Amino acid sequence: MPAAPTLSPLRIGLAGLGNVGAGVVRLLADNADLIARRAGRPIVISAISARDRNRDRGLDLAPFAWVDDATELAGREDVDVVVELIGGSDGPALTLARRTLAAGKALVTANKAMIAHHGLALAAAAEAAGLPLRYEAAVAGGVPVIKALSEGMAANRIARVYGLLNGTCNYILTRMETERLGFATVLAEAQAAGYAEADPSFDIDGIDTAHKLSILAALAFGARIDFAGVATHGIRAVELADIDQARALGFRIKLVGLAEHEDGTLFQRVHPALVPLDHPLAAASGALNAVAAEGDFVGRLFFQGRGAGEGPTASAVVADLIDIARGSVGNPFGMPVAALAALPAAAIASRRGRYYLRLTVADRPGVLAELTAALRDHGVSIESLIQRGPAASGDAMVVMVTHVAGEPAVLAALAQMAGGDSVTSAPVMMHILDF
Amino acid sequence: MPAAPTLSPLRIGLAGLGNVGAGVVRLLADNADLIARRAGRPIVISAISARDRNRDRGLDLAPFAWVDDATELAGREDVDVVVELIGGSDGPALTLARRTLAAGKALVTANKAMIAHHGLALAAAAEAAGLPLRYEAAVAGGVPVIKALSEGMAANRIARVYGLLNGTCNYILTRMETERLGFATVLAEAQAAGYAEADPSFDIDGIDTAHKLSILAALAFGARIDFAGVATHGIRAVELADIDQARALGFRIKLVGLAEHEDGTLFQRVHPALVPLDHPLAAASGALNAVAAEGDFVGRLFFQGRGAGEGPTASAVVADLIDIARGSVGNPFGMPVAALAALPAAAIASRRGRYYLRLTVADRPGVLAELTAALRDHGVSIESLIQRGPAASGDAMVVMVTHVAGEPAVLAALAQMAGGDSVTSAPVMMHILDF
Repeated sequence: MPAAPTLSPLRIGLAGLGNVGAGVVRLLADNADLIARRAGRPIVISAISARDRNRDRGLDLAPFAWVDDATELAGREDVDVVVELIGGSDGPALTLARRTLAAGKALVTANKAMIAHHGLALAAAAEAAGLPLRYEAAVAGGVPVIKALSEGMAANRIARVYGLLNGTCNYILTRMETERLGFATVLAEAQAAGYAEADPSFDIDGIDTAHKLSILAALAFGARIDFAGVATHGIRAVELADIDQARALGFRIKLVGLAEHEDGTLFQRVHPALVPLDHPLAAASGALNAVAAEGDFVGRLFFQGRGAGEGPTASAVVADLIDIARGSVGNPFGMPVAALAALPAAAIASRRGRYYLRLTVADRPGVLAELTAALRDHGVSIESLIQRGPAASGDAMVVMVTHVAGEPAVLAALAQMAGGDSVTSAPVMMHILDF
Repeated sequence: MPAAPTLSPLRIGLAGLGNVGAGVVRLLADNADLIARRAGRPIVISAISARDRNRDRGLDLAPFAWVDDATELAGREDVDVVVELIGGSDGPALTLARRTLAAGKALVTANKAMIAHHGLALAAAAEAAGLPLRYEAAVAGGVPVIKALSEGMAANRIARVYGLLNGTCNYILTRMETERLGFATVLAEAQAAGYAEADPSFDIDGIDTAHKLSILAALAFGARIDFAGVATHGIRAVELADIDQARALGFRIKLVGLAEHEDGTLFQRVHPALVPLDHPLAAASGALNAVAAEGDFVGRLFFQGRGAGEGPTASAVVADLIDIARGSVGNPFGMPVAALAALPAAAIASRRGRYYLRLTVADRPGVLAELTAALRDHGVSIESLIQRGPAASGDAMVVMVTHVAGEPAVLAALAQMAGGDSVTSAPVMMHILDF
């Protein structure tokens, strides 16, 4: 074993001591020797700030200076890098981020909401000052997808990036399938177990996935972040019946964030989608995250791992710190902010694909003729159709998979069906992932 | 779109114009603008060397200086980085690599054999001179696993790294299963189609996988490369019967390179192994490569993509060039060569696991009693057993999966069986991947 490194340590100011912050403290302590060997110098925490100084986190905080106001970390002389783990797109996290860069210090954050909303402005400030700004932990937790897109695939034109970016949604959908439970039951159970927040809407309504997707799209396509341009749908409407019918047809339902760069436009959508069972995304179960990206030379790369939790997120935060300790600066979005293209949002009408449709209908003659006529009227042809006889309610269920069709035509056909008196509850439509 | 970068270009000397070299020429031309935006400066080829100047590669080589002797690229004033794509662990590739570093130039190579045999010495030379030495393309083609291990997972103690590292073997095993053909037939077909070399032994005997595995182990564990310490078994002995029986038991046979760091020792083995069908490695079919690595904080990460071919390998080579253009130097093995630990090889006797056994036996009374007694005599218990009635040859087949047992006990039991007169051909034993 070589002698301990003699270079000056990289000194951290850590803001936020939730799960991830506590994980960073533990990781820097547990693997200190290894990290120093890999980083070329020790990485040490100088000062810490969190809301509650006295909460028992199972950590000895005595070695670190305590700061009540996190934003003061930026000005401390014993801090080289601020690690922002407060969360929230604005408020103290954003104030701290701005002050850190203004004070000439490097910034590491796990804050996807802040990067999605203010990442370009922060990156421009970092670039102007020649400072590192890193956020590997903001997307897919411990899976190094930021690095993969901005460095590993840097030689490629990337046409499409997509994946499972929210562990809570993936956990809920997996539990619904394996335990045969409804959405509300699994959500309540996940909340009780601490896997879902008391207010779960950021996760289950797809907003968290949209934050992450907008970041991946910027990196993949060399484009300006457009979080507002993400069409976002969550998983509240996914029923066990859909999971079962999808499975019977050879698919598994996942909350997919999908971004495409085509003809100079940016397509971004978060939605529950049917993933073929032989696609690697279909096998990423439970709290796993997974990302696929398609480059013109490399083809499709696929990355999978734990997307949240203390250990994986701390692993990504400290990887960023090691890069900074090694002297890496780089552009936060893989090229200067000024070189990122402002891509107009793709017209939804241009979208084509196969669609899964599920309808609850009255159990009487002529209903199928009515449904299939609506599709015919809009030029949509049917690849497969399943009718399930009446349930206790007296209603029947019709499930269809269309051939490739334009999305507006499918929507128009559904509207026509819903306007008739055969369809007894709102039709369900989901996209099929055919790549 | 911003104005073209004004920084001075990074100038390449390219040695070797096979598939990969031609791919690098095409990639640097096709994506020149994008690469310049991401690298911060243009990356241009100054000079090229290959065996045959006049072969038609579908490339216009006129813009580049031609050098007959590749090793002269190292000395050229118009070259900042030499890209070595000649191949072979020694000979001109090694001479060129040494001269490049001695001349104070950066080196990028796709040469796994050279890195496995001479990587430490080359890395020490690069470190002493403060020069980048990069070899992302040497392992898993376009999948950025070198970067993932040395940077993305750098905060973790990694206990195990394993994967499918040879596309030819994966293609052959996949074809055997899907087309129900024997090994020799598929190999001949792969050779005819150009997927396998005329002399396929480097691939099918596991040597290529062993080269790559020894590199991954060094990066993952912070250890010195020990290629000679890899216990290497190829796929020549895998029969369709094994693929079928494994499938019936819930497994798929893959050529797995596996390295573990435990109690200060290094375990490295390349072998056909039974992978559970729900393991992500099992789904990596055809020419795909896949790597899994287990970190103490991040858990298991999984990476998959095309492991060979012009496009993916060129993608990895140019990613290295972009890193160098951005100013990244770094230690080739993630820490200084002097800090890498010299780990003694693990004793094979310490290995425990479940084993798949297949025996061809005479079809007469008492045979099963003889086989099961041999296992009992060595303390090995049986988890499942299948006997298939006599084939046309008159012999029967017995397939067993053991409970977890020590490998020496299983080998001793097999030797005892083979010593009797019931077993009519060499027993087959394969490891089961239980993680």
